[in-house]
Amino acid sequence: MPLSITAQAAETVEDSPDYVQSLARGLAVIRAFDAEHPSLSQAQLAERTGLARAVVRRSLITLRHLGYVDTRGRDFFLTPRVLELGFGYLSASRLPELALPAMEGLVREVKESCSMSVLDGEHIVYVARVPVSRIMTVALGVGARLPAYAASMGRVLLAGLGDTALDTWLAKARLAPITAHTLHTRQALRIELLKVRRQGYALVSRELEPGLCAVAVPIRVRGEVVAGLNVSLQYRADAKALAMSTLLPALHEAQAQIERTLAQVGMPAGYARA
Amino acid sequence: MPLSITAQAAETVEDSPDYVQSLARGLAVIRAFDAEHPSLSQAQLAERTGLARAVVRRSLITLRHLGYVDTRGRDFFLTPRVLELGFGYLSASRLPELALPAMEGLVREVKESCSMSVLDGEHIVYVARVPVSRIMTVALGVGARLPAYAASMGRVLLAGLGDTALDTWLAKARLAPITAHTLHTRQALRIELLKVRRQGYALVSRELEPGLCAVAVPIRVRGEVVAGLNVSLQYRADAKALAMSTLLPALHEAQAQIERTLAQVGMPAGYARA
Repeated sequence: MPLSITAQAAETVEDSPDYVQSLARGLAVIRAFDAEHPSLSQAQLAERTGLARAVVRRSLITLRHLGYVDTRGRDFFLTPRVLELGFGYLSASRLPELALPAMEGLVREVKESCSMSVLDGEHIVYVARVPVSRIMTVALGVGARLPAYAASMGRVLLAGLGDTALDTWLAKARLAPITAHTLHTRQALRIELLKVRRQGYALVSRELEPGLCAVAVPIRVRGEVVAGLNVSLQYRADAKALAMSTLLPALHEAQAQIERTLAQVGMPAGYARA
Repeated sequence: MPLSITAQAAETVEDSPDYVQSLARGLAVIRAFDAEHPSLSQAQLAERTGLARAVVRRSLITLRHLGYVDTRGRDFFLTPRVLELGFGYLSASRLPELALPAMEGLVREVKESCSMSVLDGEHIVYVARVPVSRIMTVALGVGARLPAYAASMGRVLLAGLGDTALDTWLAKARLAPITAHTLHTRQALRIELLKVRRQGYALVSRELEPGLCAVAVPIRVRGEVVAGLNVSLQYRADAKALAMSTLLPALHEAQAQIERTLAQVGMPAGYARA
């Protein structure tokens, strides 16, 4: 019985008798909770997911039985057990574990936070982060997502796509100005990405947040870009000069160390790629 | 339409028409991947989950369409998108975010790693971790699980249960010696937990790993224990003396700071509890 799921269009998959609607709906219920919605009633969950209340109710009964949600009165909230769903990826992909020693060395040297992320569609997803003290926040912890086009790590990940994949990505991407500085036209972004590809790093200044600046380099396995590694710092007048003179050389050292480690353990490129 | 899921026995829930088997099965497929099994074929997934191959196949088609798994040849692996499922808990429960400043201060002071975890059935789940350099591993990162009875944070969490809940927990717990030092009889464990409850901390030496020692204190919200906070260190002859003279006072300081912060923001006890 062949799996035969590669060649089908999205609509075909969802209409197929092999597509498990109730699994997709249950996962949508889990995703409905976030910092602004830590607890939700059945009615609120139905509204946020667009699912019928009866469907939400059956999902909740199942998720509660499995220990992924709990209730207090009429409200439901996620339990820490949901962490085990993401933990499978973190322990299966050895990328974060293998990169952390070099990242910690980098943070000790430059005294700024270092992060690693991978591409997941329109977003980057943080898979490792070594913060400098005091600014570690869950908001940019492992699992956090940012729009790829405006993030330094997103730029090196996009620049690492082949021309066809990049064209497809750009054609589908929803671009918008996030700050006054955000590159948000397809043409400007393409020119910048080709520059990033040539120079081997991305420098993003105040495009994602008005007060933030970051420089990123790609991490390659067998020539293929599998992750982005960056150092971020508060914006100031000399931030770009500092990034080029101090941060980029330190990033290149960490990049070389991580790529050596990944090559030594024979990391397959596929695992780390979204 | 009442939810009415609290009073039903486990078997009744699973046999109920309201229980969504295909959701439970899809989540079991996600959980089948780990460090030892980063990629699995359909047949291997069927074996590890105990599900029929046709069920595994439909789950995979759905999970792949949703972007949670990808394939390389005949093998399937999780993508970083699964992190978003756990991220909902981390951003919804503000506990890790609110505790991190005190945890970072503690690590700077004692130069040993500090962790926070919550109880989830037989396990503790790490929800925050501030490592000292070099020993940060994904193996004990956020989302990692350890058997509660042999971990210092598990002991303060269990000691924080009411007598009835503790009796139920002990009656159901599967206890076994993990090292030569592990307390693994119900009677010995009960005596130790009552001692932990009286003294307000748990000291665990070489019960979980031969070379590891840890001391933990409970974190309370409105009098209810919601999390455990610990400092771990390599075992050595004077580890216990060091834990009592230096680590415990520093832990008590961090505990007070975290409990003040949680009280200030009006953290409800329910969110943080498993």
